[in-house]
Amino acid sequence: MPTEFDPPSGTRDFLADEFAKREWAFGVLRSVFASYGFEPLQTPAFERLDVLLGKYGDEADKLVFKILRRGEHEASGEADLALRYDMTVPLARVAAAHGSRLPTPYKRYAIGPVWRADRPGRGRFREFTQCDLDILGSGSPLADAEALCAQHDAMVALGLADFTININSRQVLAGLLDVFTVPDELGAGVLTSLDKLDRLSPAEVVAELAGRGLAEAAAGEIVATMTATDAADRIRTALKPSDTGTAGLDQVDQVLGLARTQIPADRIVFAPRMVRGLSYYTGPIWEVTARGGAGSLGGGGRYDHLIAQLGGPDVPATGTSLGIERVLMLLPEDAAGQRGRIDVAVPVLADELAERSFALAGAARSAGLRASVYLGSSGKLGKQLRWASDAGARWCLIYGAAEREAGTVTVRDMATGVQAAVPADEVTGYLAERAGAADA
Amino acid sequence: MPTEFDPPSGTRDFLADEFAKREWAFGVLRSVFASYGFEPLQTPAFERLDVLLGKYGDEADKLVFKILRRGEHEASGEADLALRYDMTVPLARVAAAHGSRLPTPYKRYAIGPVWRADRPGRGRFREFTQCDLDILGSGSPLADAEALCAQHDAMVALGLADFTININSRQVLAGLLDVFTVPDELGAGVLTSLDKLDRLSPAEVVAELAGRGLAEAAAGEIVATMTATDAADRIRTALKPSDTGTAGLDQVDQVLGLARTQIPADRIVFAPRMVRGLSYYTGPIWEVTARGGAGSLGGGGRYDHLIAQLGGPDVPATGTSLGIERVLMLLPEDAAGQRGRIDVAVPVLADELAERSFALAGAARSAGLRASVYLGSSGKLGKQLRWASDAGARWCLIYGAAEREAGTVTVRDMATGVQAAVPADEVTGYLAERAGAADA
Repeated sequence: MPTEFDPPSGTRDFLADEFAKREWAFGVLRSVFASYGFEPLQTPAFERLDVLLGKYGDEADKLVFKILRRGEHEASGEADLALRYDMTVPLARVAAAHGSRLPTPYKRYAIGPVWRADRPGRGRFREFTQCDLDILGSGSPLADAEALCAQHDAMVALGLADFTININSRQVLAGLLDVFTVPDELGAGVLTSLDKLDRLSPAEVVAELAGRGLAEAAAGEIVATMTATDAADRIRTALKPSDTGTAGLDQVDQVLGLARTQIPADRIVFAPRMVRGLSYYTGPIWEVTARGGAGSLGGGGRYDHLIAQLGGPDVPATGTSLGIERVLMLLPEDAAGQRGRIDVAVPVLADELAERSFALAGAARSAGLRASVYLGSSGKLGKQLRWASDAGARWCLIYGAAEREAGTVTVRDMATGVQAAVPADEVTGYLAERAGAADA
Repeated sequence: MPTEFDPPSGTRDFLADEFAKREWAFGVLRSVFASYGFEPLQTPAFERLDVLLGKYGDEADKLVFKILRRGEHEASGEADLALRYDMTVPLARVAAAHGSRLPTPYKRYAIGPVWRADRPGRGRFREFTQCDLDILGSGSPLADAEALCAQHDAMVALGLADFTININSRQVLAGLLDVFTVPDELGAGVLTSLDKLDRLSPAEVVAELAGRGLAEAAAGEIVATMTATDAADRIRTALKPSDTGTAGLDQVDQVLGLARTQIPADRIVFAPRMVRGLSYYTGPIWEVTARGGAGSLGGGGRYDHLIAQLGGPDVPATGTSLGIERVLMLLPEDAAGQRGRIDVAVPVLADELAERSFALAGAARSAGLRASVYLGSSGKLGKQLRWASDAGARWCLIYGAAEREAGTVTVRDMATGVQAAVPADEVTGYLAERAGAADA
């Protein structure tokens, strides 16, 4: 049951462990993307309403969080700003605004929250992180392959191996419509139906195609070709009469050839019936699917005119999006490594010993360790040791009246309970040595 | 002149260099805060409107960005959500929502954007990053000292040294009003005027105090005490008759004593006339000021009842806020280190050599280097070398017809122009060795 203290519907509070896992993953992604020469871009959470609206159709516009005008205009009930819906519209704006300051081609990644007023559900949020990788200003298949390989390497670096990259081309699909003489006006619908061959039986798809107005014979032939065990070969043969189809196959083969220099051959396949819903793609397209049915983990493709349509310059472009929220759910809880909140706990056994204990925590930090004094009100060592244990400390530095007398600090190993009397001025060195040995 | 492509008023696009500097700084902060056992917390960008409004008064409420209701409710012109205004209201909500899952005391940091519809100006933004450090559930001066020292260490780790930490206590201020017999109803106003002694002459402040209704003799006496060269000593003497004042001095001395075990003594001083505007402070307060007049770089103090007032549990609390946007402006442009976009550039000299060149970039990445192939359309080596140079590459890997014939790759050192013929299968090792040597 949600309470008045829960975060708003569809959003989350990330406490320490979850935050650590996410930050670790984002750091891995940044590092892989940088290794390909992609540079980061961060844009504001909100854009002017006119920049955002009307770019992806009415359905998308309904999901935009709009921000009310302020001050005397608030009463109008009108909005002038809106939270960003994706990373591509801001990219188009940035390309228009900062064009001359950006390198050519502009290879950028963006990792950050976007907001959509979707119905929240399992794994579906209203505030979620997108992770996009795009290259503006290159029409080369090398650019497609770089985006694809960078996404692949990022997933591998996160520890994922059990996934397949399906690659196709919009021209292959156009060529198929061509050679099977699908009327132009039915093209988009036919592709939508063919995209369902993973979920529906061939007969069901044939029926759906017929329902769209395609001749039953043509529908049967196209579905038979695409579901044959040697579908890829049959489609290659079928496409020969179509210039568009042949060009599409060339694109696929070029990107496949490049990608296979970096990606194991069985992890990337030509998937001639993979459509990807969005109509703005203009060349190679790809989709990453987890084996075992966890669905799409992201994908992308070439979208040569979209940046201009979104208000940016007319540049060739390609890019890919990693479904990072879904990927994060596949990672183990302790992907970032598990450790306690602190390495070194310092009890405070009397008010007049507080300064010395506080200084000991500082000495432990000088040794590169995370350290804190006890901040509670109990003067009892037993209770303070329980705090140290709960906080995951590896060592306790005990400084009481006896230690003050002797000029020592009692270093307790929390795993073994073994205690050593260490001269007060040697504590930093003592801890640094043991921490180094433990990490080595 | 702003254009239609600029980000919304008061917000910024962070391109690669700026982003790198900011991420570097945030990484330093996270590391320092973790070294004190603070853990991260990330809350959603927006909260329910009722959570946010009415917490800091009408002036603050006017600066809140409100989000319009969606769907059929949009036409109402009403808001139900709002972008977070600070990190403290979300902290109070999290303490209420997740209390039992949080350690006691709960030491958390939060680094992230907040939004205020303020008039944008030089160094003042509508979207800016806050960096807060708080401890809930400890009334100990050790907690105040931990927050203070962590903030100090963070600034030092960022490379700042030329700053002063001024420390005072609300009880010292209350004691002063007490011993100078300032009527209760004038107390807040008198403190506000005394806070101006840094900017106004003593006579001006005396006049302002008199204007507030304080007897001129008392006004003169209090200003004389506070502006004396030995003000701290005179105030200590003056406060002796006041229990509150004496308790305040004890607080200051305890925190000072603890902090000075970690902070150079000349960097932290008792500043008895430092008020800090916000009325919710209940104990020690501090402010960090850059020497040379750059103003406040942050500050904080104990605020024992605020979390309850904000809707959270009634726990003692202390915390500090680093003015990270201002701190970032003080850091050198290249604080994060300057380097090119890539380490290794790989020209592509003919279409049939593209796969091999693409694989060479992969080989360079295997050596831990950032590498990219040329993605443009020119086949000319000279043009591609200029691209490599613009991208800041240290090496170029040239693979043309001659290299293919010889089974080698020409490795060009971009700084010296010296070229070496390296057997194709030794390129990774060759680069790894040189990169290691260059970094050592």
